[in-house]
Amino acid sequence: MSQEEDVIALCRAARASAPALAGASTDDKNTALRAGAEALRRRQSELSSANVADLAASEGENKAFIDRLTLTPERIEAMATGLEQIAELPDPVGESISSWTRPNGLEIAQVRVPLGVIGIIYESRPNVTADAAGLCLKSGNAVVLRGGREAFRTNCLIADILGDALGQATTTIPREALALIRTTDRAAVRTMLQQSESIDVIIPRGGEDLIRAITENSKIPVIQHFAGICQLYVDRDADLDLAERIGINGKTQRPGVCNAIENLLVHRDVAPTFLPRIATALEARGVELRGCDETRRHLPTIVAATDADWGTEYLDKILSIRVVDSVDDAVTFIRTHGSGLADAIITKNTSTADRFVAAVDSSAVFVNASTRFNDGFEFGFGAEIGISTNRLHARGPMGLRELTTYKYVVRGTGQIRE
Amino acid sequence: MSQEEDVIALCRAARASAPALAGASTDDKNTALRAGAEALRRRQSELSSANVADLAASEGENKAFIDRLTLTPERIEAMATGLEQIAELPDPVGESISSWTRPNGLEIAQVRVPLGVIGIIYESRPNVTADAAGLCLKSGNAVVLRGGREAFRTNCLIADILGDALGQATTTIPREALALIRTTDRAAVRTMLQQSESIDVIIPRGGEDLIRAITENSKIPVIQHFAGICQLYVDRDADLDLAERIGINGKTQRPGVCNAIENLLVHRDVAPTFLPRIATALEARGVELRGCDETRRHLPTIVAATDADWGTEYLDKILSIRVVDSVDDAVTFIRTHGSGLADAIITKNTSTADRFVAAVDSSAVFVNASTRFNDGFEFGFGAEIGISTNRLHARGPMGLRELTTYKYVVRGTGQIRE
Repeated sequence: MSQEEDVIALCRAARASAPALAGASTDDKNTALRAGAEALRRRQSELSSANVADLAASEGENKAFIDRLTLTPERIEAMATGLEQIAELPDPVGESISSWTRPNGLEIAQVRVPLGVIGIIYESRPNVTADAAGLCLKSGNAVVLRGGREAFRTNCLIADILGDALGQATTTIPREALALIRTTDRAAVRTMLQQSESIDVIIPRGGEDLIRAITENSKIPVIQHFAGICQLYVDRDADLDLAERIGINGKTQRPGVCNAIENLLVHRDVAPTFLPRIATALEARGVELRGCDETRRHLPTIVAATDADWGTEYLDKILSIRVVDSVDDAVTFIRTHGSGLADAIITKNTSTADRFVAAVDSSAVFVNASTRFNDGFEFGFGAEIGISTNRLHARGPMGLRELTTYKYVVRGTGQIRE
Repeated sequence: MSQEEDVIALCRAARASAPALAGASTDDKNTALRAGAEALRRRQSELSSANVADLAASEGENKAFIDRLTLTPERIEAMATGLEQIAELPDPVGESISSWTRPNGLEIAQVRVPLGVIGIIYESRPNVTADAAGLCLKSGNAVVLRGGREAFRTNCLIADILGDALGQATTTIPREALALIRTTDRAAVRTMLQQSESIDVIIPRGGEDLIRAITENSKIPVIQHFAGICQLYVDRDADLDLAERIGINGKTQRPGVCNAIENLLVHRDVAPTFLPRIATALEARGVELRGCDETRRHLPTIVAATDADWGTEYLDKILSIRVVDSVDDAVTFIRTHGSGLADAIITKNTSTADRFVAAVDSSAVFVNASTRFNDGFEFGFGAEIGISTNRLHARGPMGLRELTTYKYVVRGTGQIRE
């Protein structure tokens, strides 16, 4: 078979396996997850060897890249624990979302079912192979994985280990339900993205370029996670201690992630007091500040923000600051420059908070709390496959439920339509 | 401006209007809907004249086409009543889908919000203009409508009437939120389908060819409604009176719609008794029967079904019949040939029913009831924009709720992430 035929066959086999997995019991799925965790631990030294080979082939890459690619014993243990945690989570499949009885006696139930087959395309972190496989398995979905070429040996071995464990632990879940594309050729991704008969949805995990390229080329719906340009608005009626704490947290706790803040908006009335103190606090933590003209009147030493700054996801210790005249101005700024991921207001004024919450249409809107909480674990989902900036299907943090759809089950006693 | 620029400007204006409509009160939306209904009634004679002009330009088209295009006074009244009924429905916007408190005290609410801007592309029925506009308005969505060219004059006037009424009834809903593409040039559809920055989702209403063409060309997600190949399975333990009644209803009550049945599956054990009686009943109602070899042993006068028959949506008084050995065989047939829209089982055996319900993954699965109930009105939604055969976002009948997404509103007291 050609490589293209291989990819098509793999996707078709995943599709064919989907009904069996969709019908698998919670017990069987959990048994498979725990067996997978155990096997990862047992075969830790093999995994380390495969990873060393991948690392050797990536010599010369930058430090951050090498770090993402590296599987330490701790990270292998974390993958195993992750699978066990997924086993502990409630099974979303079969959950009755709602049910009602019609005047003609028909009993209608909206019941959660798996999406079917999920395609995951990701970059160099090999732990995604186990995480994504575990989340798809628990939610009853077959999965077609395509990992970064640099982690090829590691990913293949993780998939082998999990596939073996799955096959030994249960007879109800076909091994084909956990598929990995075993070629580093980029053409395989293009082929995968054409298999709309076999794959129901593509979830890319990686940088914006990867996601744009996939969206451009996919015949399959893509759940996107584009930029995270998050704003913190400090209102006239803000508790400034709280604003300072949340501002520091939003920018510095982990600047390289999507829910860190990029723009700080400060109401004119509190600018003279708040700007100097937040600037001192952030600069002490190594943050570079950029400001509008009005901001620079209060903070003359910082550089001027350009138009491009307001729409940039720095993913770094840089923050742009703008003075605004009102909550409505803050909302307008957010609509213009934000990416709809997460925005926060700090205020003691309930009606101002309500106005902000109603007008800001982001996946999560925070009142007196850090945008860094826009996260599946922090929301209590127990897991996260990603954060969606789509408006269709799932929005914001995606856990197990967001990997499902529903069907209607209608029970009658012979009703016909007149 | 060129036509292309016109379309782009129209879509952008709809996008710009979306926040105002999303924030409009339920009262304002209902006032606008009722004003629209009143205006349609008041300007009935103008509407009839515009429609007569469209009809004159369509001379020579077939009878069914002309019927769909014709606006009688009764149909104008039905459009008006439809808008009033939409005004009576609960407003989905702002509904709390779920809410919970985290151990750190964060209060999280999942709140329903409009999708944003919806594009509706439809064929010759002019009443869709008013129906779709009404459903989008009530669900807080701006809408860009593109109707069939044959109904161009009628559609333009309906949009004018509704737009005028909207503008007079309320100041909170911008007129741009109800946009109609005012050219019959097909290139305008291609332009519309590229406006992914302005339109969040495309809902086509029409035949399979239209939907496929749109899906092929769209940069915007499309909610599809492909073929409706629905099955009725009469189990060994069926109440045969009930099976006969539901079989007749499924095939003959309205054969041209998607939730009518195309294939009848009959368990071998009841075939000798059931087949002759259902055949007599259906043939008396003008239905042409086609059968597998086994079926034709019991019904020697009917023609043989070809392989193509099992996968054909007749939309007509034709039914293919197959004898099966078990409920599992019926499920396999449905997985192979069905389109995942609606399937039914007739049985008195609860465990057989449960087996069927668990294994058949269609948007609606019926037990002892007609597939014809797969419909937003019959489900009690009070309205229907279409029936989705997608698995993402919305599945099955789509009412107002299915035109919404959600955002998370998180209220804290200064929480930061550690």
